Amino acid sequence: MCRRTVPEEVAVALVYDGTTEAVMMATPSDLEDFGVGFSLTEGIVTAPAEIGELSVVPGPAGIELRMWLAGDCGAGYACRRRRLAGPTGCGLCGIESLDEVARPVRPVAAIGVPFAAADVAAAVAALEASQHLKQATHATHAAGFFRPGHGLVAAREDVGRHNALDKLAGALARDGVAGSLGAVVITSRVSVEMVQKTAAIGAPVLIAVSAPTALAVRTAESAGITLVAMARGTSFDVYSRPDRLVAVD
Amino acid sequence: MCRRTVPEEVAVALVYDGTTEAVMMATPSDLEDFGVGFSLTEGIVTAPAEIGELSVVPGPAGIELRMWLAGDCGAGYACRRRRLAGPTGCGLCGIESLDEVARPVRPVAAIGVPFAAADVAAAVAALEASQHLKQATHATHAAGFFRPGHGLVAAREDVGRHNALDKLAGALARDGVAGSLGAVVITSRVSVEMVQKTAAIGAPVLIAVSAPTALAVRTAESAGITLVAMARGTSFDVYSRPDRLVAVD
Repeated sequence: MCRRTVPEEVAVALVYDGTTEAVMMATPSDLEDFGVGFSLTEGIVTAPAEIGELSVVPGPAGIELRMWLAGDCGAGYACRRRRLAGPTGCGLCGIESLDEVARPVRPVAAIGVPFAAADVAAAVAALEASQHLKQATHATHAAGFFRPGHGLVAAREDVGRHNALDKLAGALARDGVAGSLGAVVITSRVSVEMVQKTAAIGAPVLIAVSAPTALAVRTAESAGITLVAMARGTSFDVYSRPDRLVAVD
Repeated sequence: MCRRTVPEEVAVALVYDGTTEAVMMATPSDLEDFGVGFSLTEGIVTAPAEIGELSVVPGPAGIELRMWLAGDCGAGYACRRRRLAGPTGCGLCGIESLDEVARPVRPVAAIGVPFAAADVAAAVAALEASQHLKQATHATHAAGFFRPGHGLVAAREDVGRHNALDKLAGALARDGVAGSLGAVVITSRVSVEMVQKTAAIGAPVLIAVSAPTALAVRTAESAGITLVAMARGTSFDVYSRPDRLVAVD
């Protein structure tokens, strides 16, 4: 029988003003980041300050992330909630018709610093070195944020790749790191929701260890995101907006 | 710019008696298998014959899988729908409270044929050889069914690992292959929903290329499923019910 370390996986409910928006299986760490990041990437709030209070409440069936929207935000939530398209874990959960799927993405700004080809390999290597849970369990994904000249400034892990990215989004927002300053780096494949969440973070570059889907590539193009995938060692492929990478043809 | 082949990913709605149960991003192949398999593993029907009609209806926003439940089944659907716990893509989408998460699993029957350690490596190798979409795109998961003495009798691919397993469930049911006869083999990590779906298929053995979560291991134990993971080459770990594997200590 195997005695290898396995990661925990618990049900986490995201609750706004007393109403459950979504329930996901997640790694029970960095849950405040998760709550803030999910709220941002799903468009429930536009800044962490719009969440007036966030409590992590463990219970027998899982963990509730109870968030209370601040001031006017709370009053507007019922309204905002109906505008949500494509919320939650797999990027689509809760959607009830095909028309709700195509979530418009806001184009990202140009990256303010040169992003070199060598930064791609450095970002992937730094993310891999930061994956402590992965090293113990081989069962988790990670999302990090790499700033040219600064290195990997944040990284988060989770059994779910969307959750890892949401945790990263929350960590950046809570630390006041502007997404426009660097690249999001992920260990997973790139489906459309990963691009949508990167656009919500405002990062102009998305680097993935594995491959993208066709819809992810089209969405990256329309958001003006440089999508780099199959990034292994010094080798990688560029699927959209290659102009942002210095010294890449 | 990269000219590598990327897999399509489209929104697929599962519609029962005119009501959309779930919408997922999926690879648009084997969609009849997907509709039947999802219906089975999510407990909406107990046999393919309970689906009286299944139409694949492409539209501008995605593809609808329109299913009409047969005879008495349709009348009971509203009732059955409320019993659904943990439906859809990531295994949890649509869930609205923590109490709905813990879906009871029915214990599986004993495998009727000896399952040898050598079969594990053979199953993984056969699944890998069957992954035509993966070989072209590096972006898809697969689920297969391996019968000792018969080899890999079915395999399906999808950008989503849950979808690949649902497609396999549908293919087996439509071909009349009893899940109790062999092992489910998957290319992904093992989160709890993968075990729940394997239990719904009735397969006594689940083999995964990557690692499981702690909840997946507990669920496999309670369902009496032999969970084999980190299966690479001739090396693998057994996390539950090792007694089903011949010549494994």
